[in-house]
Amino acid sequence: MGAPLLSPSRRLRRTPFSEGVEAAGVKAYTVYNHMLLPTVFRSVEEDYHHLKEAVQVWDVACERQVELRGPDAGRLMQMLTPRDLRGMLPGQCYYMPIVDETGGMLNDPVAVKLAEDRFWISIADSDLLFWVNGVAQGWRLDVLIDEPDISPLAVQGPKAEELMARVFGDAARDIRFFRFAPLEFQGRMHVVARSGYSKQGGYEIYVDGTDAGMPLWNALMEAGKDLDVHAGCPNLIERVESGLLSYGNDMTDDNTPHECGLGRFCNTQSAVGCIGRDALLRVAKEGPVQQIRALAIEGPRVPVCDKWWPVTARGKTVGRVSSAVWSPDFDTNVAIGMVRLTHWDPGDIVEVHTPDGVRPAEVQAAFWN
Amino acid sequence: MGAPLLSPSRRLRRTPFSEGVEAAGVKAYTVYNHMLLPTVFRSVEEDYHHLKEAVQVWDVACERQVELRGPDAGRLMQMLTPRDLRGMLPGQCYYMPIVDETGGMLNDPVAVKLAEDRFWISIADSDLLFWVNGVAQGWRLDVLIDEPDISPLAVQGPKAEELMARVFGDAARDIRFFRFAPLEFQGRMHVVARSGYSKQGGYEIYVDGTDAGMPLWNALMEAGKDLDVHAGCPNLIERVESGLLSYGNDMTDDNTPHECGLGRFCNTQSAVGCIGRDALLRVAKEGPVQQIRALAIEGPRVPVCDKWWPVTARGKTVGRVSSAVWSPDFDTNVAIGMVRLTHWDPGDIVEVHTPDGVRPAEVQAAFWN
Repeated sequence: MGAPLLSPSRRLRRTPFSEGVEAAGVKAYTVYNHMLLPTVFRSVEEDYHHLKEAVQVWDVACERQVELRGPDAGRLMQMLTPRDLRGMLPGQCYYMPIVDETGGMLNDPVAVKLAEDRFWISIADSDLLFWVNGVAQGWRLDVLIDEPDISPLAVQGPKAEELMARVFGDAARDIRFFRFAPLEFQGRMHVVARSGYSKQGGYEIYVDGTDAGMPLWNALMEAGKDLDVHAGCPNLIERVESGLLSYGNDMTDDNTPHECGLGRFCNTQSAVGCIGRDALLRVAKEGPVQQIRALAIEGPRVPVCDKWWPVTARGKTVGRVSSAVWSPDFDTNVAIGMVRLTHWDPGDIVEVHTPDGVRPAEVQAAFWN
Repeated sequence: MGAPLLSPSRRLRRTPFSEGVEAAGVKAYTVYNHMLLPTVFRSVEEDYHHLKEAVQVWDVACERQVELRGPDAGRLMQMLTPRDLRGMLPGQCYYMPIVDETGGMLNDPVAVKLAEDRFWISIADSDLLFWVNGVAQGWRLDVLIDEPDISPLAVQGPKAEELMARVFGDAARDIRFFRFAPLEFQGRMHVVARSGYSKQGGYEIYVDGTDAGMPLWNALMEAGKDLDVHAGCPNLIERVESGLLSYGNDMTDDNTPHECGLGRFCNTQSAVGCIGRDALLRVAKEGPVQQIRALAIEGPRVPVCDKWWPVTARGKTVGRVSSAVWSPDFDTNVAIGMVRLTHWDPGDIVEVHTPDGVRPAEVQAAFWN
């Protein structure tokens, strides 16, 4: 079956950049945090090649912010995550798993520390605001929590730095990876971070105010003409090659961070106060029994992966594939799957049950990019 | 612009009935609780006429359940809602607004009381599980909370009772409105409630177990052939005519239940323990300053309403329209909007700013169905 139609409604929120996205000829969307997220402009493969060669502007307004501010903001942040936040400074971004009391992942956002008592959590696809609010209410913390009018716009690709310097000045060049600085555009300051959901380099601009959206979109498009700038979006092929996980696809609240290969973002011993700490102490000590792996699936291009594909070995289920797509650059089907420890070593051969039939697949030592 | 394409992925979960939905020729979807919800089969208008004349089977698996069980389940339920639950008996369904500590609506589910210490909350489009879990964690309540493998299948339309009796036996006829009974199909019991998201009468079957989905779907289709049964879905025209609100479209967490015209489901004085009670006591006493209204928009058929349309009177903003569509039966554009008290009386004339231009609209005394 080809892609079905999406029925528009107010509930699937438009973004400050939707007008630009439509003018650029968006072909398809997904829905993310109750908001439209473009998925294809020219074609997934054309967008992919272009992302690796030039520069793209992405409407990722759907990365909504949960803002925490007030005396208990720092305490609440540490309650949310097993990552030790004591060393986090204003101006830093931290990728941080958020877990519930069982250690199950509720989101895998990037947190932005604006001040000692003020944070943004730039969320993946789940209503994290509800969890944060519920915890704050139950613990009667002194903190204000809301979703501000902040809409991320990503600039990604090898020419991103050049384009950003043209629009925001050379200060954009000085921003280090996972750091941010407030930069000015048309008289308003926006948080600009060196980050993004690709491995091609780039920035995320936390655009402050819906009205600032289209002027900035247009300025980037105008300034980047000779750089071959184009509207783009998170690219399925590039993200699987790069091992960028997608919450809801590759992991759910059933999974611990350790299963997702995010153990390096957990400091379970020292993250005192984290709600899921007790549950994760044992996992951290013994290790998970299944974990995310890169898989190369043999044969011609796989169909669209819109459900878990079982992974077996000698007739026994040993995992599942959650994302898979043909990679032109690596000339194989690249995939992300959860695999049991009996079969997760590099070179292990398993069977992936695609809708087109069973295919051999090889566990990789690392992702491709 | 016509409807764009939707890119499938695992994150937009398929349902136990997806196979049947596809075989029935689904034309478009929306995304609801991270799950596919069909929106069109033949056309919105054909589906609408058929719903009012025959019987339809709807895949509403996206109405996910939040299950609460344990000694504190009842206490936690009352914390969630300003509706007084003391009179709720096992076997009853309650429509209940869920509010945060500011009285803002987080969801407007139907709660199902399975036993004194066990409930399902059949949710609208927000991750209510996160709020319920956060509150339970913060208050250290003795309650288990999860999303069980329960997928509602609705049977709606004037011939629904006849079809249900053929598949579940005459016991289905005895179920009163907003009551439920456990009924058997192929050796398994399913909760069957007289309820549903239309005003045409019908049932919701809380299908227990993914594997039970397609056998039941097929049995309903087979048994209803001479009743002209067809796959259907919540219908935009019918729901607006009927004044069935949609969370995320017609109301958000900015709105109190009273603004949404749901004051009759609030017993703010007696709902002791409700988290939002303090905030709502004043609203309940003084009344809201804006409220949901039915609006008839003049002129030819309005375009797709995918964002708030401002409502003005003499140049001043007095509200917004959130859902609007042409009604063949009532020969007008029917709409749902939030209107300030200065202009909310029946017969008041306001101006609606549609993308096609400004149109006069008349505030109605009631919805159409």
